[in-house]
Formats: sequence, structure tokens, C-alpha cells
Amino acid sequence: MIRVGIIGGAGYTAGELCRILLNHPQAELVFVNSSSNAGNLLTDVHEGLYGETDMRFTDQLPFDAVDVIFFCFGHGKSAEFLAAHEVPAHVRIIDLAQDFRLAATAGDYVYGLPELQRERIANARHVANPGCFATCIQLALLPLAKNGLLKGDVAVNAITGSTGAGVKPGATTHFSWRSGNMSIYKAFSHQHVPEILQSLRTLQPDFSGAVDFIPYRGDFARGIFATAVVRVDESSDVEYFAKLYKDYYEDAAFTHYVDKPIDMKQVVNTNKALVHVDKFGGKLLVTSTIDNLLKGASGQAVQNMNLMFGLDETTGLRLKPSAF
Amino acid sequence: MIRVGIIGGAGYTAGELCRILLNHPQAELVFVNSSSNAGNLLTDVHEGLYGETDMRFTDQLPFDAVDVIFFCFGHGKSAEFLAAHEVPAHVRIIDLAQDFRLAATAGDYVYGLPELQRERIANARHVANPGCFATCIQLALLPLAKNGLLKGDVAVNAITGSTGAGVKPGATTHFSWRSGNMSIYKAFSHQHVPEILQSLRTLQPDFSGAVDFIPYRGDFARGIFATAVVRVDESSDVEYFAKLYKDYYEDAAFTHYVDKPIDMKQVVNTNKALVHVDKFGGKLLVTSTIDNLLKGASGQAVQNMNLMFGLDETTGLRLKPSAF
Amino acid sequence: MIRVGIIGGAGYTAGELCRILLNHPQAELVFVNSSSNAGNLLTDVHEGLYGETDMRFTDQLPFDAVDVIFFCFGHGKSAEFLAAHEVPAHVRIIDLAQDFRLAATAGDYVYGLPELQRERIANARHVANPGCFATCIQLALLPLAKNGLLKGDVAVNAITGSTGAGVKPGATTHFSWRSGNMSIYKAFSHQHVPEILQSLRTLQPDFSGAVDFIPYRGDFARGIFATAVVRVDESSDVEYFAKLYKDYYEDAAFTHYVDKPIDMKQVVNTNKALVHVDKFGGKLLVTSTIDNLLKGASGQAVQNMNLMFGLDETTGLRLKPSAF
Amino acid sequence: MIRVGIIGGAGYTAGELCRILLNHPQAELVFVNSSSNAGNLLTDVHEGLYGETDMRFTDQLPFDAVDVIFFCFGHGKSAEFLAAHEVPAHVRIIDLAQDFRLAATAGDYVYGLPELQRERIANARHVANPGCFATCIQLALLPLAKNGLLKGDVAVNAITGSTGAGVKPGATTHFSWRSGNMSIYKAFSHQHVPEILQSLRTLQPDFSGAVDFIPYRGDFARGIFATAVVRVDESSDVEYFAKLYKDYYEDAAFTHYVDKPIDMKQVVNTNKALVHVDKFGGKLLVTSTIDNLLKGASGQAVQNMNLMFGLDETTGLRLKPSAF
Repeated sequence: MIRVGIIGGAGYTAGELCRILLNHPQAELVFVNSSSNAGNLLTDVHEGLYGETDMRFTDQLPFDAVDVIFFCFGHGKSAEFLAAHEVPAHVRIIDLAQDFRLAATAGDYVYGLPELQRERIANARHVANPGCFATCIQLALLPLAKNGLLKGDVAVNAITGSTGAGVKPGATTHFSWRSGNMSIYKAFSHQHVPEILQSLRTLQPDFSGAVDFIPYRGDFARGIFATAVVRVDESSDVEYFAKLYKDYYEDAAFTHYVDKPIDMKQVVNTNKALVHVDKFGGKLLVTSTIDNLLKGASGQAVQNMNLMFGLDETTGLRLKPSAF
Repeated sequence: MIRVGIIGGAGYTAGELCRILLNHPQAELVFVNSSSNAGNLLTDVHEGLYGETDMRFTDQLPFDAVDVIFFCFGHGKSAEFLAAHEVPAHVRIIDLAQDFRLAATAGDYVYGLPELQRERIANARHVANPGCFATCIQLALLPLAKNGLLKGDVAVNAITGSTGAGVKPGATTHFSWRSGNMSIYKAFSHQHVPEILQSLRTLQPDFSGAVDFIPYRGDFARGIFATAVVRVDESSDVEYFAKLYKDYYEDAAFTHYVDKPIDMKQVVNTNKALVHVDKFGGKLLVTSTIDNLLKGASGQAVQNMNLMFGLDETTGLRLKPSAF
Repeated sequence: MIRVGIIGGAGYTAGELCRILLNHPQAELVFVNSSSNAGNLLTDVHEGLYGETDMRFTDQLPFDAVDVIFFCFGHGKSAEFLAAHEVPAHVRIIDLAQDFRLAATAGDYVYGLPELQRERIANARHVANPGCFATCIQLALLPLAKNGLLKGDVAVNAITGSTGAGVKPGATTHFSWRSGNMSIYKAFSHQHVPEILQSLRTLQPDFSGAVDFIPYRGDFARGIFATAVVRVDESSDVEYFAKLYKDYYEDAAFTHYVDKPIDMKQVVNTNKALVHVDKFGGKLLVTSTIDNLLKGASGQAVQNMNLMFGLDETTGLRLKPSAF
Repeated sequence: MIRVGIIGGAGYTAGELCRILLNHPQAELVFVNSSSNAGNLLTDVHEGLYGETDMRFTDQLPFDAVDVIFFCFGHGKSAEFLAAHEVPAHVRIIDLAQDFRLAATAGDYVYGLPELQRERIANARHVANPGCFATCIQLALLPLAKNGLLKGDVAVNAITGSTGAGVKPGATTHFSWRSGNMSIYKAFSHQHVPEILQSLRTLQPDFSGAVDFIPYRGDFARGIFATAVVRVDESSDVEYFAKLYKDYYEDAAFTHYVDKPIDMKQVVNTNKALVHVDKFGGKLLVTSTIDNLLKGASGQAVQNMNLMFGLDETTGLRLKPSAF
């Protein structure tokens, strides 16, 4: 059994980790640290856990009792935590924030996108879990980068659920405003673009284009749906590109190329990603979709844990899709 | 032109008043007071007003410039405001809070439910605008009370939109939690029950039953849909009761008895109320529905203003239903 | 391994069975029969299965290859099917329609509500799976009936998701109409009332009251949330009743009494039911909630299969709640 | 009073016309023709009209009694209707289908986008009302075309409500599938692109780029929200472009340039369009939003009627935004 601790336990990604780990056949949830919730029941804070656990939040950090810890902090707080605390060498770390995703500040943290570098993750002691948009968009583009086919700027539009905005209530997550509404934010400047570019350029070093990313606020709770338009050689047919994707994801545990148009609820409440391509003249249209809290956060974090501990990648992650 | 001021201008009911009054052919919106928003554009705060006004919030109270003011405070604040400020005698007041709805503390405030007492409102200088649930539930029961037919306890279930919870974001209005969710609150103890009972007992003094009211949080933004079950004489047929309702609402400007089953979107974004009855043995099932921000708040407040100033009740209130 | 066939495979409950059974560690999905879809991929019809199966619908009925079949027909069609086909004696049957729920027509079908009669189900060859509303409402009332505490008529209001209306599109499941809308249907006459009364009277033979059930159409896809009001002895406090519920559900695999107010998303996408009681004078308010496709249909059907084949009840049913 | 007839009266755009025209101070709704609904009450078919009309659908075509008729047919049926019926010369026609939008088949039909050619509409006897997406996207691009600033291909993403798919229920408008879901359709091949290009090239004849349009199915009922990315001169600042838009729409009755980021519910249930621009290096990002049934269909049709009959454009169209 892998003994697990969660730090920063009050937010959505921590809750989702609990929902997964409490039923993970090879993991044991040892502690969930939250200073603000210390003493409270997990069931009082995290929706959906009644009948599954009597565990309480702790303000303690019993590192000796665990093999791996997940950081579920806000961005910037993981580095702060590590500066203030000594985590024993035997404890592996999976950081869900963006503190160690970029090479410049990563140290020994390995970027945890299995579809990019499964082996490196399997050998890592510290993993930086990718961003939710970053995961969905990379999965749409990696096969092209792998084959050196990205050229020019890539136009990306992606829409995310309200859980992407976190548990703290605010104006843009107020039900009255968000339901039946549509808007964008951080266009061309979202913080996930650098990690996307980093991965694309790892696979295709000569790619010098931009990823022009427009994020939308969706009026749903879970999921990301993305479209990416890439200029391609007009003479190659769509089957050529479809095959590149099928080949690239042939061994992927959760990412599947689908021949038909996809929709988001195919993956909601699962760790899956679906990708589909279509072609119009010299433009390739890639659609991809994930659950932002699972493949986009906590599910992928557990997938990384499985890899780091030598388990089958899908252990504890064969989740029934909600579908509706 | 009726010159209008709004005080407590930052919340949902104030915003809805602005949306109505800016297009009201016989009213002029003179000022919207909000200390927290003084200097800001109305369009920055209230959704939907772009292109309709350049007005800004003020922290001034130019009572001399207006004929009527609307109080859009939180409950309890209207009385506080009146204790701290002298409102000139020529200025009529319509209070949307619950401070003056009950006879014990009403002073000269007239309870502003036109279907109960249109004449008294027309002659009032001060009106206490009814609560949203209170309006919907009274409209379901007044015809029975009028005919002395309420007996025993009345079982009421009603579901409300998120705008009923106000503009301040919180856990139960967070989109992530509320969308696709269902829950109840304040069962058997909602603050609107006393004003409902007051009206029922005005019409039927011998009614000694309870109104057992279970409020639900709906995963929609606008609207209230209520059911009420009342014990009735088994030998009277449903047409008998339907006729009582039709007669009672014959002259109502916005409340209509409908022969078919009703649904909430028939009235969303209008000042209308729909009522329908069905009968099963000795039980009468009444359904009623309103828009909580309109007939349940700001729309009814303007209806009351129209009455107080001798206008046709529907002036400025013939609103296109959103329908979808 | 339990070898499973599904008949009537194109609808929602069949799809949900597939989603469960494809990950059930002790079951093997052998065939899914659908005359209208014969030859099509399951993934083409049932949302959420990409990457999990390459199975196709069949128009064959290979009874010899299975140990159990699930009937996912519309109501009335199960009896028709059995009249037209001979199902071998070794094949157990779990019928999700209502054809065999009532004693008068049940034959050797056992009513499959584990919280009512787990042992009888474990020994059954044929099980009639309860209705969705019927499950949620019975779970709210069984502990009272067990203790002989039902008296008078029970007032039940319950709201269901659109999946309760089935896969065939219609006016009341059109997104344009249903989103943000609220309405009722089949008040006091829903077809699930007889099976509810049958169970209640099994536990409390002297109960002669009615279950006055008002069903609501919810603007969400999954879930049922119910309230029930029962007259009780005013002198007993709420803890007394809470203890009855805790005791009754002490050994239930999926039904939990919760001390706090409950909300529907605590159970969506799980096989769980939550129940909570509150008391106001002489009235007990019970709230209960389930996922209509799981505990209300396919999840409970698999729970029954587990019982019939001697497995732990929760096998294959420890489902991650969607929570959001 | 303008006497109005509606033909093809059972669908969403006809219903919305009724909702507008019943309260239009200078129009009288004389007949609503629907062969399938002849004899039925309008209120039985069109949501939201209780209390506003007792009118019934007719299968008659009393052309003599009207000054203008609206065609609310499916695409292709308007031409069929005109081939089969003689509409008297005095009756003006506003066609909401796409039969006469393109010059090649328009005959004397004037393309009814007031922001493009208000004067021509005012003098027209026959008007082809623009498509919903076409309206929203043109309003995002016309000021650039007017100033000859379109270059290269324009990347457009736009999301529409379920009412855009019409009243007939189907798989992609089933609430169970669409709620909380996201998908695209007709990418790069939507039927509205030709009319968009026609208008753009009218204003900027040298524009030879494509409009790469990806339509999304939104999980809301009303509204369209669009983004368009256009390559522009990097040295011009965003204020330069903002001013072009403000100038272009200075006299527009319903289209407003907004300095702040916009959201869709600012316009839902109104005839307004909002447009906003932002600039990132050499790319201009334009956002625009309308209500698909109003500015995108029936509202614009009435706006055109007002122009054709010499009324103020806003007559009957100062609609209260639903806002929530």
C-alpha cells in the first residue's frame, strides 16, 4: 500500500484526490492537512464522501507515515511550503500547483504528463502536475509536434467548467451570473501557455509559432473542451493526420483518438482524454476534451503516482463516466 | 413623470428596478444611491444596462428631486435608515425589505400585494412590498381564504432561483455546488410565513392552520414555482375551485388562472403570476409560479408605484417573457 | 466471473449498466441485445464508453453464454418478451421495468430493494428492480414503517433529472424548454406509488394512509431529491427518530443516515442514498436523495446481481461521486 | 397601426415574434398561420403568452388584412411558398429563412442588417433577415471591413443556445445530453459563412480571406457569444481600433461598443448587440454577443419592419434584459 498525505486539503483538487484515493486499491490516505479545517470531518468539506470515510483534517504533518504527498496549494505556495518545511527524502512529492512546471524553476521536478514522458515520470521522485488547460491543449498538439508538423501560430479556444476557478466564491462563479452566460478571460495571456510551449518545443525544437489561446468560462461545473487550428500541408489527407494521432496515443492509458466528433460528457468524471481531428483545406482542426479535475488535475496526479510507484497506470482510475 | 430614487442600489432588486424604470414611460430614474458604489457607472454593476444609461451611483440623497423612493436594503436596514434620515413628507416610500410587512411594526405602511388590497395600496403613502415566496404562496391561497375554504394545515413546497439569495457570493450560490444540485433550507421556519398567515387570516379570520413551507434551492437563476395542498370538501369538483380562482383574479393585472398545467418559464422575466388547480379526492393541489425578481420583488414594487400614482397598473411592466 | 447479457440495450438504464459492468471485477458483459442497434458499436450509442470496449450490439439472444440477464425494456415489455421467448432456467433475470414489482403479477419475482429484504433477494432467481422514485421515497419511509410509526397521509415531493424521462427526445426533455424551468406531472397518480405502499404495508400492515406524491421535473440530468412529511408523536424528539434511521440502515451497503442537511450532489454518480430527518412540532420531515440511474435503476440492479451471486454488495459499485 | 401576419407560426422564431408584436405599440398581430396548429390557441404552443392573447392559429392566409408578413419557415420553404401563393403587392415580406440572403437568389430582397444598410432596408418592400450567427459575426467584423482592415483569414469561434436548433426535439437538444456538455458542429462549413463574406466584401471588395468559423453547441437556451481574431497592423494601438468600432456603431440603435470585457447575459432577452476589442501584438481579438432569437432573428425582423414602415427603430424593442 502506498501511504498518502495531502497538503492544502480544503480545495477542489484535494477533495477530488480524496474521492479517488479512498477507493484506490493500492493506496491508503493517511492524512489530509488543512490548517483552516483542522478537526473538521472530510465529509463536512468535500462533497460526495458520506459513507466512505470518518477521517478528519489535521494540522499536523506526519511525513514519517507516508510515502508520497500531494501539494494542493494555490500557485506559488508550494515553493513557500518547501522553503518553510523539510520534507524527508523518502517522501515523494506531486505538486498540483504550477510552481515547478517550467524548466527554469523546476529543479528535480519532472513535468507530469504521461503522454509526453511516461518513463521520466516513472523514475521521478518529484513531479510537477500539469495545468488543466495545459493538459487538454497539449494532448491536442503533441502528435503534431512529435512529427514536426506545427507551423505558424496555433489558434486555440477552450472552455472550462466553474470548478476550474476554485472553491472560493466570487463574482464569476456566482450561479446567478454564470448560469446561461458566456464570457472569456485572460485571452492570449493565460498562465498555462508557457508550459504548453515548453512541451511542444521539446518535441519540435524548431517550432517558433505562438499558441494564441482564448479561454472561455463555461456554464457547467466539470470539463474542458478545446479546439486547435493548425496550418498543415493541404495535400495530406485527414486520414494521414488521424493515423499520427492514433499511433502517438496507441499506448496511452487514458487518451484515445476517436474517429467521430467528440463531446465533453464522453469524459466527464473520468480520467480520460479524447482527441479528434478534421481537415479543411490547409487547416487541421483538432478537438480535445478532458475532465478538468481529473485528467486536468487530481486524476492525472494519481496516474503519476501510479507510475512513480510501479503500478498499472489505471489503478484506482477506472472511473464510471457520469455521461449525463 | 414620476421622479424616482433608489436607495441601497447595489443589489439584485435595485438592478431589476433600474432595468424596469429606465424603460418606464412615466417614470424618470433620478438617482441610485449606493455608498459602496458611489461614482461607479450603473452599467458596471448591473448586468444588462449597456446602451440604456450613463447614470452613476451617488452617495447623495436628493430627496427634493424625487416623488418616490425604493428601499432595496437588506432586511432590518430600512427601519435603521429611517431612524437616521428624515424623508420629506412628499416622498412616498416603497420598501422591498420585510421591515414593515407585519401589522405589529408596519406603522402606516400598507402591505403591497395588489391582489389582496389594490385600493389600499392606491391610497398609501408608504408601501411594504411583499416577499418573493410570500407573493407566490399567497397567490396560490388567497382565493381559498377569501371563500373561507382553508382548513387544517397547508403543505407548501416551493423552489426558488439563485437570485433569491442575493448578489453576495457564498457557498450555496457557488456555481460548482448549485448547478445540477437540489437541497432545502429553513423548512417550516422561513421568514415569509408570518406575512402569508397575516394575509390569509385577514381574508379568513377563522383559519387556524399552519402553512408548512419547505423552500428548495433551485439550480436556475430566476423564478419561483410552488405547490400547495389543501384539504377540501371531497364533493366539490375541480371546476368549482377553478371558478373561484378565475373569479378572484378576474381583474388582476398580472395574475392569471390557467386551465392547463403550468410551468415556470411561462412567467420568467415578466411580472405575471400563473395559478392552476387540480383536485384529488379531498385534496386540492394548487400550483403557482412567478419571477422572484419581478412579481416577487421589483416588478411588484413598480406595480405598486403605478397604483400609488394613479397609473395603469401595467405601465412599464408589459415585459417580454424570456420563455427560454 | 458472472456472465451477463443485457436486453433492450439502447436506453439509458442499459447504457448505465454497461458503464458499471465493464469495470465490474467479477462480471463479464457477454452481449447487449438491441434490435434497433444491432451491429452498431456500444460506443456509438452510449455516452462515455470510448476506450473501454469495442463491443457491438447484437440481435441475438445467446442465453447459453450467460448467467444473468437484465431487462431494460419499457414498462410492459418484459412480460411480452417472456411470453415470446423461453429463457433457460439457469439464467437469472433482473427486470428493470415495473412488470413484476407488485405481488399480484410478480410470480416468483422478488422485489429488489436490499434495504427491505436483502436475504430474499440473495435467494431469488428473478428480481424486479424498484422504480427510481419508489426507491428514494421508500428509503425515506421504511424505518418509520418498520417501527409502526406511519400515520395519516404522507406528503411527498420529489424532483427528478431528465434522464428519468428516457432517451427518446420529447417536448419536456427539450433543452430549450427544460433548462431553467420547473413543473410537475402525474401528481397524486404516479405509477410508483403502488410499489411504495406495498413495501410500507409489508412492514406496517396497519398503515392505511395515502402517499400523496407530487413529482417535479428538474432541470438537471441525474438525481432525485425527495421530501416526505409524516405526522408523528410530538413528544418524541428528533434524536429519537434519527436513531431509528441509523439503526435501520446500520448494515446497509449504500444507504446512510446523515446528521446534517443533505444535498443531491452528495450522491450523484454513485449508488448511495442519503437520508436525513428533522422535526417540527408533530411533523417529521424526511429528506432523501439518490442518483436515479444508479441507486434508482442500474446501480441497484447490479447491487441485486451481487447479492444473487453471493458477492459483496458493493463489488463494482464503489463509484467516485461526481460531486460537481 | 401596422397589420401583421406570421406564416410558419409554430416554431421558435414565430413564437418570439408573437411575444414582441403583442406588446408593440404600433403593430397589430392579425393572424398567425400554421397548418399543423390551426385552431389551437397561441398560448398552447408558445411559452410565455398566457394573459396576453386569446388568438388562435389559422390555416387561412388573409393577405388583404395585413401590411406585412413574416415568413418563419425552415430554410428553402419560403421560396416554395412564394411559388405556390400569390402575395399581393401591397404586402411587404420579411423572410427569416435564408432563401433570399445571397445576391444570386435574392431578387428584390434586401439583406436586413441595419448596421450594414439601414437606408436600403427602409426603402425595401422585401427583406431577407440575416442568420443568427451571421448577425453576431458580421457585427464583430463590419467596422474592420468598412475601413479596409481585414487581411488574411479570420478565425471565428461562436457558441449558440439550444433555441438555435429549433423546436423539434432531437439528440443534440435532449436535455440529458446537452446540459453540462460541449461540442462543435459544421466547423468551417456553416451555412451562414456565405452571407458573412458577402457583407464583408461589399464593404471591403479586396478582402479575399476566409472566415474560418467553428460553431459550438452551448448548454444554455438563448444567446450567441463570438470571438474573432484578425491580423492587424501591430503598430496601431487598441484605442485606434476601439474608436473605429465606436464610430461605426455611433448611430446604431441596438449595437454598442463596450470598453470593458463583455458577457452574453448583458444582452439575453434584448435586441442589443455588444462588441468589444482587445489587441495582442499583431492580432485583434473581437468579442460580440447577441440574443439569437432577438437580434439574431425575430427582434431584428421587427427592427427591419420598423425601418420599412418609418417608425423609430426601437419601437416595441426596448426589452428588459433578463440579466440572470
